[in-house]
Amino acid sequence: MTFHGRSLIGFSHGSESTGTFQAMNPATGQALDGTFHTASAAEVRRAAELAREAAAVLAGTSPSERAAFLRAVADELESARPDIVARMPLETALPEGRANGELGRTIGQLRMFADLVEEGSWVDARLESAQPDRAPVPKPDLRYMRIALGPVAVFGASNFPLAFSVAGGDTASAFAAGCPVVAVSHFAHPGISEIVGSAIQRAVKASGLPEGTFSLLQGTGEDVGIPLVDHPAIKAVGFTGSRFGGLAIAERAAARKEPIPVFAEMSSINPIVIRPHALKTRRDPLVAGLAGSVSLGVGQFCTNPGLVLLPAGEDAEAFIQDFAAAMDDSKGGTALHAGITKAYNEATQARASHANVETLASTANDTGSNRVNPWVFRTTAAALLADESLTGEAFGPSTTIVTYDGDAELTRVIASLEGQLTMTIQADPADHPMDAGVVRAMQERCGRLIVNGFPTGVEVCSAMVHGGPFPATTDARSTSVGTAAIERFSRPFCFQDVPQDLLPEALRDGNPLGIWRLVDGERTKEA
Amino acid sequence: MTFHGRSLIGFSHGSESTGTFQAMNPATGQALDGTFHTASAAEVRRAAELAREAAAVLAGTSPSERAAFLRAVADELESARPDIVARMPLETALPEGRANGELGRTIGQLRMFADLVEEGSWVDARLESAQPDRAPVPKPDLRYMRIALGPVAVFGASNFPLAFSVAGGDTASAFAAGCPVVAVSHFAHPGISEIVGSAIQRAVKASGLPEGTFSLLQGTGEDVGIPLVDHPAIKAVGFTGSRFGGLAIAERAAARKEPIPVFAEMSSINPIVIRPHALKTRRDPLVAGLAGSVSLGVGQFCTNPGLVLLPAGEDAEAFIQDFAAAMDDSKGGTALHAGITKAYNEATQARASHANVETLASTANDTGSNRVNPWVFRTTAAALLADESLTGEAFGPSTTIVTYDGDAELTRVIASLEGQLTMTIQADPADHPMDAGVVRAMQERCGRLIVNGFPTGVEVCSAMVHGGPFPATTDARSTSVGTAAIERFSRPFCFQDVPQDLLPEALRDGNPLGIWRLVDGERTKEA
Repeated sequence: MTFHGRSLIGFSHGSESTGTFQAMNPATGQALDGTFHTASAAEVRRAAELAREAAAVLAGTSPSERAAFLRAVADELESARPDIVARMPLETALPEGRANGELGRTIGQLRMFADLVEEGSWVDARLESAQPDRAPVPKPDLRYMRIALGPVAVFGASNFPLAFSVAGGDTASAFAAGCPVVAVSHFAHPGISEIVGSAIQRAVKASGLPEGTFSLLQGTGEDVGIPLVDHPAIKAVGFTGSRFGGLAIAERAAARKEPIPVFAEMSSINPIVIRPHALKTRRDPLVAGLAGSVSLGVGQFCTNPGLVLLPAGEDAEAFIQDFAAAMDDSKGGTALHAGITKAYNEATQARASHANVETLASTANDTGSNRVNPWVFRTTAAALLADESLTGEAFGPSTTIVTYDGDAELTRVIASLEGQLTMTIQADPADHPMDAGVVRAMQERCGRLIVNGFPTGVEVCSAMVHGGPFPATTDARSTSVGTAAIERFSRPFCFQDVPQDLLPEALRDGNPLGIWRLVDGERTKEA
Repeated sequence: MTFHGRSLIGFSHGSESTGTFQAMNPATGQALDGTFHTASAAEVRRAAELAREAAAVLAGTSPSERAAFLRAVADELESARPDIVARMPLETALPEGRANGELGRTIGQLRMFADLVEEGSWVDARLESAQPDRAPVPKPDLRYMRIALGPVAVFGASNFPLAFSVAGGDTASAFAAGCPVVAVSHFAHPGISEIVGSAIQRAVKASGLPEGTFSLLQGTGEDVGIPLVDHPAIKAVGFTGSRFGGLAIAERAAARKEPIPVFAEMSSINPIVIRPHALKTRRDPLVAGLAGSVSLGVGQFCTNPGLVLLPAGEDAEAFIQDFAAAMDDSKGGTALHAGITKAYNEATQARASHANVETLASTANDTGSNRVNPWVFRTTAAALLADESLTGEAFGPSTTIVTYDGDAELTRVIASLEGQLTMTIQADPADHPMDAGVVRAMQERCGRLIVNGFPTGVEVCSAMVHGGPFPATTDARSTSVGTAAIERFSRPFCFQDVPQDLLPEALRDGNPLGIWRLVDGERTKEA
């Protein structure tokens, strides 16, 4: 596998260079083969302008054309599996099994959106019949559906080099909605990005779509991503990453002459509340489950549980002792890149040196290139309520256990938390009498509520919400996982008295697509 | 009718005062009875905090409880009809017929949302069954629905003192979604606001809902509205008004520690394209229809057509001559308040003095308190393309006619326009061969496309979109009119393995509400 290292601008490769960089193997600290070229300002512009030119064509594709394109991307990725699986462990230190699994999920997402688009009812078609004789004014013929928002900038995420990067969830849902995509590679995995981007490029060509359907820009978010967000052709942004990065993009997007929506998934500590009876009766499985969830993927998941709330008492002490013992060396690993290593080490050192925090477990003496080791801290609800820095994210295999005194204090802690992707409650039937209040407070602050499970493991399906109130995301009205993600890159549109031949098929008389529609208030698949 | 002039803070009246003001009769320039008190900072905080306390209760109301509340608000407004209809002409210079009609629409909107909520399927319920034996990992039980976003700040609009103010579309859709509302009165109609706000207050009490369900703040957007937007309890904002006002709110909301969505409907000139055959064959009805649409409600509708594009030639000249003649004195009237009069006069004077603009009709010599007179301008597509100021809004009974040379120039003009609420095309079957391209370009830039109609007159129904790309609104992914408006104040939420007794009824086994749900990918009303 050799890399040309250039951005993919429609059907061409970039030819200019404003700087070069190499991917680093996080496990060795050594540069990998392949010299990558930061896209020039002209290349960024060209990618955005090609996307603008392609937008109307892509928006006007039929459901079957769009589904075929999504499946073509999936097939091209399957063909590229050997190259992807060979490169991914080098650029990310993630094992081959993870590469294969994440590629499977990525391909699955594309096929899921193909099925969704082909079925067609996602457009939420609504028809209201004309009443030409109505007094005092006639009622026009009104037809409503969701249409594409326009070109989307998608930022690759370091922790999901496939499922949330160049051909990841945002790209799949944008294509499904009929939007062109300009992807920004993550500097930590430019080689994977080139392989995946080339696969998409081949699928665009084979599907007969305009070249502006897809471009891939190499370079950093600062050098390439921000100028892309500034370009007037871009109509929305998808991002998964740090709070710092997400907020920088959101501020820039809001400052444009035409502000645009930003879907940034940023920061979440995914609190877990363990209720008294569950804590007493299920200690062993809870210890094992929590240790697995905290350390899964070297703790580098957005849904990693960074806060565990226990009712103070002897059951809590026993749980804490067992959990600290379980978080041994085997729970650490190699971080995705040096930036994560540095941020994790700084966050855990700060927590460890906090006056009101006790360090229960740490193997920080195990050093090595980008080695991140488990850290377990404990503190009290009172300390947490007094210092919000204790609810900050330490992205890696770390968690903070907090003991609370009574349900009133628990409710205060929950009410003090920022928005989260998930909140979890571990409770037995005997714990239930008070749960409704806690559940309601938790629901206000997250996008997904889990009972008797763990937050890691995000099912890709119609009923998933991977989103939540700020700062979990910049826009709680959306999800980045599951079929509902198609809504973020679409908008409602109304056709008033538009003749049949100018209407999209989804809205024509006779319901030629056979989709579910709301016709004069009745939901039906009939003509 | 006497006014206490105080803000309504939950079930109480405000008692502090940081300043007083009176409503002005725009037709006379005289102050009306009633002294109104600008809400104090403490009253703003109290209203927001009451809303926060009420949020979980309101979000947890059953569909029938919420529908009953919306109907109670409608009934209280109906009871207040004599007071509203007596006061509205004084504060707005709008005729009694309009007051009665707009009140009917406002009551109708509330009842429409009651029906929507009672039917219940708007929550978009999705269920995915658990697969405990799935390998490599079990699939959890996942249930998705839309839930309330939290307390909403609603700004009253001067041009819809009922339908887009204290009990208007945003309030109705926020209540329907389960969100408390803190309304900000418009300084031009504080009396109407007090009458309407008191009606809502009575309905909240009678419905047994917490007092924080609704508050009304008296004062200006600057004094009262901005501090309200800053309050952390507020989770979304609805606004209809000027571009200046909407942008000020959007910037403030984006600068909060927790940014929140702003749905500001701001600025639109609602272009109308008349195609050659239609121009030739339907001159008289087009002249009459356009004159009616431009001057309806003294031109003070968001969907007022401020730009008319005609193919240059003798048919255009004949149309222009007839249209200028039709726009006589009878098309003017009294503006809603002095701010609109001033802005309209400045905008029309600037347009009239533009080097490339010809004034076709004006009766500017007819002066009087807040008198706004019709202005008709003409220019060319080339001039428009050279100076974007010619596409600015002049809010009142004015329009600019633009002649274009050929379809390529028309397409360039459309591509140069900012986002709009509506675009309209007047075309006969003989005009159609080129329409698809024009239609596509128009669709990219608006929220509603109208064929052979006029943009004024916004049907309140399931298929309406009153929204569009910036600067028509700050968020094209939404509508402020019609049942789909409920989506703006809700967000998706996922319940994972949550026991039946903690689930909302909409998601329980057996489908107790009998709503449409997506169950394992199949849309069904079955249990």
